[in-house]
Amino acid sequence: MDEMSVFEQRSKAFYQTHLPHISIDCVVFGFHINTLKVLLVKMKGQEKWALPGGFLNKEQDLNEAAKTILEERTGAEKVFLEQFKTFGELGRSESDLGYMPEDFWFRQRFLSIGYYALVDYEKIMPVVDEISIACEWKDINDLPEMMMDHRKIYEEALAVMRFQLNFKPIGYNLLPEEFTMPELQKLYETILGKTLSRGNFQRKMLAYDIFIKHDKGRRGGAHRSPILYSFDQDKYNHALSRGLKEAW
Amino acid sequence: MDEMSVFEQRSKAFYQTHLPHISIDCVVFGFHINTLKVLLVKMKGQEKWALPGGFLNKEQDLNEAAKTILEERTGAEKVFLEQFKTFGELGRSESDLGYMPEDFWFRQRFLSIGYYALVDYEKIMPVVDEISIACEWKDINDLPEMMMDHRKIYEEALAVMRFQLNFKPIGYNLLPEEFTMPELQKLYETILGKTLSRGNFQRKMLAYDIFIKHDKGRRGGAHRSPILYSFDQDKYNHALSRGLKEAW
Repeated sequence: MDEMSVFEQRSKAFYQTHLPHISIDCVVFGFHINTLKVLLVKMKGQEKWALPGGFLNKEQDLNEAAKTILEERTGAEKVFLEQFKTFGELGRSESDLGYMPEDFWFRQRFLSIGYYALVDYEKIMPVVDEISIACEWKDINDLPEMMMDHRKIYEEALAVMRFQLNFKPIGYNLLPEEFTMPELQKLYETILGKTLSRGNFQRKMLAYDIFIKHDKGRRGGAHRSPILYSFDQDKYNHALSRGLKEAW
Repeated sequence: MDEMSVFEQRSKAFYQTHLPHISIDCVVFGFHINTLKVLLVKMKGQEKWALPGGFLNKEQDLNEAAKTILEERTGAEKVFLEQFKTFGELGRSESDLGYMPEDFWFRQRFLSIGYYALVDYEKIMPVVDEISIACEWKDINDLPEMMMDHRKIYEEALAVMRFQLNFKPIGYNLLPEEFTMPELQKLYETILGKTLSRGNFQRKMLAYDIFIKHDKGRRGGAHRSPILYSFDQDKYNHALSRGLKEAW
């Protein structure tokens, strides 16, 4: 099927099955061994990249729809996916699609509800679907040009995620089951894009009391083996729902 | 005009001028002398109360629309109004309006974009418009029954506002220009709904370095006059945009 026929077919189907004016965009951050990437797609007929996204089925909850979009794009289930902001400026979505007829679904004004996720990108299988030609991890330090206001959505998601590091635990599923404090620190540093003081980091982290400390270090190596930790699942989940730090 | 005619007229107008399926709800917290209230409206034909809200004009930015709704309801301009979450569960908005015909604008499925504000309620003039019969401040400790999922929206807004107390300064426009630390503490305690340790509060607050300390205390009274502070406007605004606490 040629390019425009696919969009036309989709347009007609979406008018029946999905709410107008509402889209969902997912900023999926991928971490693996000290690198942070973001998942981008390239739609047919486009040079610029876009965040993976979709629309809201008339019969679906908003959060369910976001999960569906992420699963279809990555195969990833049970991912921590958090809504962070809705983008509703005039003109935000109508640009960059001028090559499609005006009555196509994609050409209307959309508010986009932004979600973000943080996953181990080695465990994810990006999926190229019918209306895209590529779905790839891109290094956050070397991002290509993006469609519409997707760069801004990405930047706000990054800011929110970095901010959330201060009160929600991360690391589960991103680190080996047993890890050292320097490994956890490296994860934080990669996400934050800056180096942290080692003593300060360890003191703060251990004060959160979400770890199990193991007696044995890692095997091998001539030096004193570093202390291994794992997450205390109960305490981790508690901190995830209640926050790491006690408020006022 | 009778009740249903007003809704019918509005329905017809909204179909022309506003985007379908998108509503905006504002949780307006009002503070004055150690009391915290929330602004609620009662629509014609309804026993339950609702958050003041409205819809998105086709020609308006989302944030502008939220401001317009708040201004029309309260006369308040330049209020700190912050988007906090979009509510999109199936069935969230379709209940409680069964007394209207099904083809009325108000009966469709709506996603609601939630905003919250914190104002001095003495400076606000609640407005009863054409489709409502009341618009009143209600004590948060004695709230009436609310329509749809508005109680949930209110509760999430309260949680977000309380959480934000940890990293955004508040108090400007809610306190007299010069105030004492006990007065500021009382504001925090009222919003948080709990008492705080005095020494700890003052230490934390003063460490934020957003105050100007005044040499003279308040006049009158037999006792040693308490130290007066005011907000350092530059530092306050900086903390408002960048956060009170340095992150990692």
